[in-house]
Amino acid sequence: MKSWIEVNKDSDFPIQNLPFGIFSPPEAFIAKHDKAKDILPRVGVAIGDQVLDLLELKKTGVFNALKFDTNVFAKSSLNDFIALGKKTTSAVRARISKLLEERNPELRDDEKTKARVLHKMKDVKMLLPVEIGDYTDFYSSMEHARNVGTMFRDPANALLPNWKHLPVGYHGRASSIVVSGTDFHRPKGQMKGTPSKSPPSGETLQGDKQQDEVVFGPTKQLDFELEMAFIIGKETKLGDSVTTKDAEDYIFGMTLFNDWSARDIQSWEYVPLGPFLGKNFCSSMSPWVVTMEALEPFRVVGPKQDDPEVLPYLQYEGKKNYDINLEVCIQPAASNQQLETVVSRSNFKFMYWNMAQQLSHHTVNGCNLRIGDMMASGTISGTEPDSFGSMLELAWKGTKPVKLKDGSERKFINDNDTVIIRGYSEKDGVRVGFGEVSGKVLPTK
Amino acid sequence: MKSWIEVNKDSDFPIQNLPFGIFSPPEAFIAKHDKAKDILPRVGVAIGDQVLDLLELKKTGVFNALKFDTNVFAKSSLNDFIALGKKTTSAVRARISKLLEERNPELRDDEKTKARVLHKMKDVKMLLPVEIGDYTDFYSSMEHARNVGTMFRDPANALLPNWKHLPVGYHGRASSIVVSGTDFHRPKGQMKGTPSKSPPSGETLQGDKQQDEVVFGPTKQLDFELEMAFIIGKETKLGDSVTTKDAEDYIFGMTLFNDWSARDIQSWEYVPLGPFLGKNFCSSMSPWVVTMEALEPFRVVGPKQDDPEVLPYLQYEGKKNYDINLEVCIQPAASNQQLETVVSRSNFKFMYWNMAQQLSHHTVNGCNLRIGDMMASGTISGTEPDSFGSMLELAWKGTKPVKLKDGSERKFINDNDTVIIRGYSEKDGVRVGFGEVSGKVLPTK
Repeated sequence: MKSWIEVNKDSDFPIQNLPFGIFSPPEAFIAKHDKAKDILPRVGVAIGDQVLDLLELKKTGVFNALKFDTNVFAKSSLNDFIALGKKTTSAVRARISKLLEERNPELRDDEKTKARVLHKMKDVKMLLPVEIGDYTDFYSSMEHARNVGTMFRDPANALLPNWKHLPVGYHGRASSIVVSGTDFHRPKGQMKGTPSKSPPSGETLQGDKQQDEVVFGPTKQLDFELEMAFIIGKETKLGDSVTTKDAEDYIFGMTLFNDWSARDIQSWEYVPLGPFLGKNFCSSMSPWVVTMEALEPFRVVGPKQDDPEVLPYLQYEGKKNYDINLEVCIQPAASNQQLETVVSRSNFKFMYWNMAQQLSHHTVNGCNLRIGDMMASGTISGTEPDSFGSMLELAWKGTKPVKLKDGSERKFINDNDTVIIRGYSEKDGVRVGFGEVSGKVLPTK
Repeated sequence: MKSWIEVNKDSDFPIQNLPFGIFSPPEAFIAKHDKAKDILPRVGVAIGDQVLDLLELKKTGVFNALKFDTNVFAKSSLNDFIALGKKTTSAVRARISKLLEERNPELRDDEKTKARVLHKMKDVKMLLPVEIGDYTDFYSSMEHARNVGTMFRDPANALLPNWKHLPVGYHGRASSIVVSGTDFHRPKGQMKGTPSKSPPSGETLQGDKQQDEVVFGPTKQLDFELEMAFIIGKETKLGDSVTTKDAEDYIFGMTLFNDWSARDIQSWEYVPLGPFLGKNFCSSMSPWVVTMEALEPFRVVGPKQDDPEVLPYLQYEGKKNYDINLEVCIQPAASNQQLETVVSRSNFKFMYWNMAQQLSHHTVNGCNLRIGDMMASGTISGTEPDSFGSMLELAWKGTKPVKLKDGSERKFINDNDTVIIRGYSEKDGVRVGFGEVSGKVLPTK
């Protein structure tokens, strides 16, 4: 299937994708409108290098037959749209697919409407797509957990006893989740170390040298975490549990996610209650929420879970992993895109625990879900050293610096570095992608 | 100062308190009104055993001189009211104080208006007072941390190395915070243990006996945690930090808080990322938010923090602790109030880390605050065994069962037990209290 809108073969957004997001309309559009309500943030769908404006589109009546409140498109988050339920949101996506299909003249030949409902993606400002009630971060890549356990505890017992019995997770901070393109300042905090006036860059890492004093300052170990996240699309009541069989009904879609981490702050604070200030200064998500329908063709079998066998409530049937190629790039200050370096290539299919298991585990005690809640995968590392999902692992705790194209090296992330995560699935000539999540680290305030 | 409304001397809600909450009006009131907007949840203030209905009161024009949007009283949370800022919310409270002062005839002698704006507290339904964006739980009572460390790790090194350097905290679940009076089902989950068909009560606790199998079932170690919480009243931007000197400007008020915990689920899951399903099945808060103005007379000096001295960003001046008496009662199924047993008497003044320090620490890395965020103290234990704030400590890991008035014993909380936390400050004949937070444990679903 193709669209009458030209879509480059490397685009993440062919007609098979149609992800939803929230955007502010282009300045030229705003200049043409007087009323405040006409220039509000609204729901859009990505197609090629354009954005279909659903708030404008609904005025043409294309959704009339679906009989839902189209005011959900005039919102600054997708939550009300998602709350319509999968039956309706899928019907909306199907209607848009039909509208954009190459043989359909309905919008294709209506130049006046096209000019109104299609914006160039480069002209709009993408906003945070969902209002996130609660954000949970899992720890579901075995390779990541094993790498961290090897570095910080005991290579012979790198995985903790509970790891293969349950998808370990913890609650993160929702307020500091930002959309791709939001820069942030290097966080400060308490850590163990030697008082120093050296610049706050990864280059000053002291390796394993004994550092006994408690000091305060900018983190010297700023890291990214390559993750994906899913968005809850259906609420549950307190006390209810969701089975692995039903879990997918509760997932609206997915995004890329960078769970920025300050390793030195984290390692000092996290015992016994888990990560806190080492994580909650900023987490970045990609703006387009790719629906589970769009990802359907990319299901793959997950890893065997027979040693040990998991408890019945975590067992599942069918293909619940997804083949999604992921890459992380570092773009140093002032370099152009040609000078970005891919530092990791991983894949979402490596996850030991799948999303259905994560969701079932999360609700097995009766914890309630709300629409817009986000659950992230945890760092996604593959088996090969160049597929690890964090600098901590890639540079192996600072012992194997990563070389960039501009000749510099990184143990962690430097000031003015931009980190970009991209992801896409590809099969039978169709590419369904997530765009990117990027963020630039500004010097400490 | 006294009010023309009669206030019992044991009441938590004299004219010196005037806490804010959200309530649904009495059924008789609802029956008299046709329009949906007239029966909405609204903001109220507690006075004696009555509730002053601010949505009705504002129609009389008493707030006109304050020039704010009184629609904030027609909301199902206090967030919009709090967002007006302390200058305005304090002025509202001062205006209400003046209105209720015994010599003021303005409302006192207006029987018709009084009938409209005052409801009996027993006739209204209290709702969750705030929409909580993010909920953080600290771990700031040294006695609690020491007790837990002694039981689970090493009595000689009960406090972990970071504990006296920073207020350890972690993110909790906001969706499952409920208002006092909301019952919940005993949660199920994974734990270490011996498969058993025994009833899911605390009585089956196995002490320290080796339990190696991973099992699934209702928690056998359901516990309360005696806590207090504060509500953020002023937002910050991502990247901003708040000093201990300014921190109190960001706190609107306080409530009682019961951070229910399933100890067996928690102890199996919490390494290395912290508590998760052992906590997020339910947390209960009291409905009345007591303002910091009302608590002003009860400030006391906090503990010395000179061994070690804390880092400059955590240092503070003045009295930042509060003398608030706290008690926990267990009321077994079918018993009347006379048969409730006080199992703990503690005090908020025991906290090692104060709220200003918690807030400064939370934002020192740039983590942003939103209005309605909640920060809880962690379990508040005193030095004496009868002042411990959890069953885990009171019954010392099941080794010292607590005797109740009905003759039964508790190691943890049984099905159909109601746990009630109460709290109040008292000085110079004035009592400012929090009412109570109660919750009943229903059998597993």
